[in-house]
Amino acid sequence: MIPTLTWTPEGVRFIDQTKLPLDESYVVASTWEQVANAIVTMVVRGAPAIGVSAAYGIALGAKLTTAKTARDFAPEFERICSGLAATRPTAVNLFWAIDRMKHLFGRLLTSGASLAQIQEKLLAEAHAMYEEDIAACKAMGAHGASLLPDEGGVLTHCNAGALATCGYGTALGVIRAAVERGKRIHVFADETRPFLQGARLTAWELMADGIPTTVICDNMAASLMRAGRIQAVVVGADRIAANGDFANKIGTYNVAILAREHGIPFFVAAPWSTIDLATESGDAIPIEERPAIEVTHHGGKQLTPHGVGIANPAFDVTPAKYVTAVITERGVLRAPYAESLREMELVG
Amino acid sequence: MIPTLTWTPEGVRFIDQTKLPLDESYVVASTWEQVANAIVTMVVRGAPAIGVSAAYGIALGAKLTTAKTARDFAPEFERICSGLAATRPTAVNLFWAIDRMKHLFGRLLTSGASLAQIQEKLLAEAHAMYEEDIAACKAMGAHGASLLPDEGGVLTHCNAGALATCGYGTALGVIRAAVERGKRIHVFADETRPFLQGARLTAWELMADGIPTTVICDNMAASLMRAGRIQAVVVGADRIAANGDFANKIGTYNVAILAREHGIPFFVAAPWSTIDLATESGDAIPIEERPAIEVTHHGGKQLTPHGVGIANPAFDVTPAKYVTAVITERGVLRAPYAESLREMELVG
Repeated sequence: MIPTLTWTPEGVRFIDQTKLPLDESYVVASTWEQVANAIVTMVVRGAPAIGVSAAYGIALGAKLTTAKTARDFAPEFERICSGLAATRPTAVNLFWAIDRMKHLFGRLLTSGASLAQIQEKLLAEAHAMYEEDIAACKAMGAHGASLLPDEGGVLTHCNAGALATCGYGTALGVIRAAVERGKRIHVFADETRPFLQGARLTAWELMADGIPTTVICDNMAASLMRAGRIQAVVVGADRIAANGDFANKIGTYNVAILAREHGIPFFVAAPWSTIDLATESGDAIPIEERPAIEVTHHGGKQLTPHGVGIANPAFDVTPAKYVTAVITERGVLRAPYAESLREMELVG
Repeated sequence: MIPTLTWTPEGVRFIDQTKLPLDESYVVASTWEQVANAIVTMVVRGAPAIGVSAAYGIALGAKLTTAKTARDFAPEFERICSGLAATRPTAVNLFWAIDRMKHLFGRLLTSGASLAQIQEKLLAEAHAMYEEDIAACKAMGAHGASLLPDEGGVLTHCNAGALATCGYGTALGVIRAAVERGKRIHVFADETRPFLQGARLTAWELMADGIPTTVICDNMAASLMRAGRIQAVVVGADRIAANGDFANKIGTYNVAILAREHGIPFFVAAPWSTIDLATESGDAIPIEERPAIEVTHHGGKQLTPHGVGIANPAFDVTPAKYVTAVITERGVLRAPYAESLREMELVG
């Protein structure tokens, strides 16, 4: 299994996703600040993966505290949570994970748990989230595999794979499950500028599984669709609003429009922790602007003229009307999403 | 003026477009084979520029021949034309320019012209095409400027600028003309993977003219359109078929779909030499597949895993239904293009 993130006695070990695919190296974050830095610098990325990373970061902060009592630790706990929450604004899984840890901490504090008990329970909660994440990916795969064609091309954007989760993947989990069930799928991986998650990460992990993969530039999708080479699109999500609008890696909205124009089904695969019913629509999702250097440089080499303007929004919002179905661990949702999401939230 | 290509006593001098924007260096092609190589390796690119380059290549071949008479030179002339025609398949301007030189050569041969006269006339014809190209760009600017908004964002894809022509540009000529008429235009330049003509060339030449420019990744266009930051799209073309379908740099079809989805006008600017009435529709336009290394590597650095599949079509075809208007030196054409193109061809 691809070791996206692993708890070790020294801290959280990450495969360094900024170095893949040619250099498979690892980074150990031994403090919560180092975990936060790994998220900011995209050593670890992907909505589910950064959620669980933040949970481990909190557990690590608790483990390393110099506070003597649970009460003494409380203000430090708040600072740790705030520090981890400030890393990236768009994916809601981060805030979901931090909130879950906060609720647990609050319950433990109220019940008079000792600092040692709190340290143990916070780590156990992070471990539980890790295991739940893998289970959710497997369940998404089971629910979503039947939606993909028995044979044909499937386009994906960015990396919503094992590297974006604790293992197996969301969108790539659905593809893996379809392949495991005997479907003959050829994956087209958008390279996904500027960070090249598709060219670097999706290609790497699908090749490791022997799934046929062709990397394309982001601007090639429409011509492949028109040529009949793509039968379905499946992507992940960083936040799904109450009306079904969703944020995902920049370029997802482009792909959604192109798919609809060509009559190709467009699926979103995400764990329930990605769904944010408190956010009414996509317009309210904050979009992170990343540093210009991600666009202007690659591998230390400058691509653009000195001083030119650069835009680098890391995400875009795709309105719900472009989404054929949302695949979650609880099942497959269809439009109208405002209703299907609320119903599924209630039945759990 | 940007010296895209210049006739010199030593041969054709090209600004090396593979080195821009950081390194402004020049290459002199002193044989027709070196001109062909400059086209293949994209030292010079852009449909109008490669047409005129081929004409100069033929003039250069004639100048350097060891044949003693016009009749002796004839088979060599055919080989030179074939060699230059084999460089790139999609842009029709290349074949248009070679055909024009062939017709002239045939007339001169029939009229009993001497080899020296033929050498002189072929070079004069190439010079004429060079001057006509600049004049056509200026005329496109004059016709097209009124189509752009008085103030707002204009998206362009690839480089259809001075660097793609003998000067001024087609799509960028229209933008330049609008700016010269006092319009306050902010250009969004798609970076245009894999060769980065937008990030490298469009950004460079617009900055040289002081036109405000923001480089975006190809996958960012839809979100900018949705945010109301783009009021028009203008692109060049490599071949326009009789029904108005047109081939242009890979990704143009994506942009056309996105523009229509957002109700944004989509303009194509190209000289009449780009129009190929002998090609019925876009389906019949040959699309060049370029080497995978353009996608897998940048600046000597490998981006993708070893052995992954790669697609690298250099162009795509946009159906005529997405085109708001075609801007040529003869005037502005509207749908139905099968009729407007035929009529304009007749009136000349």
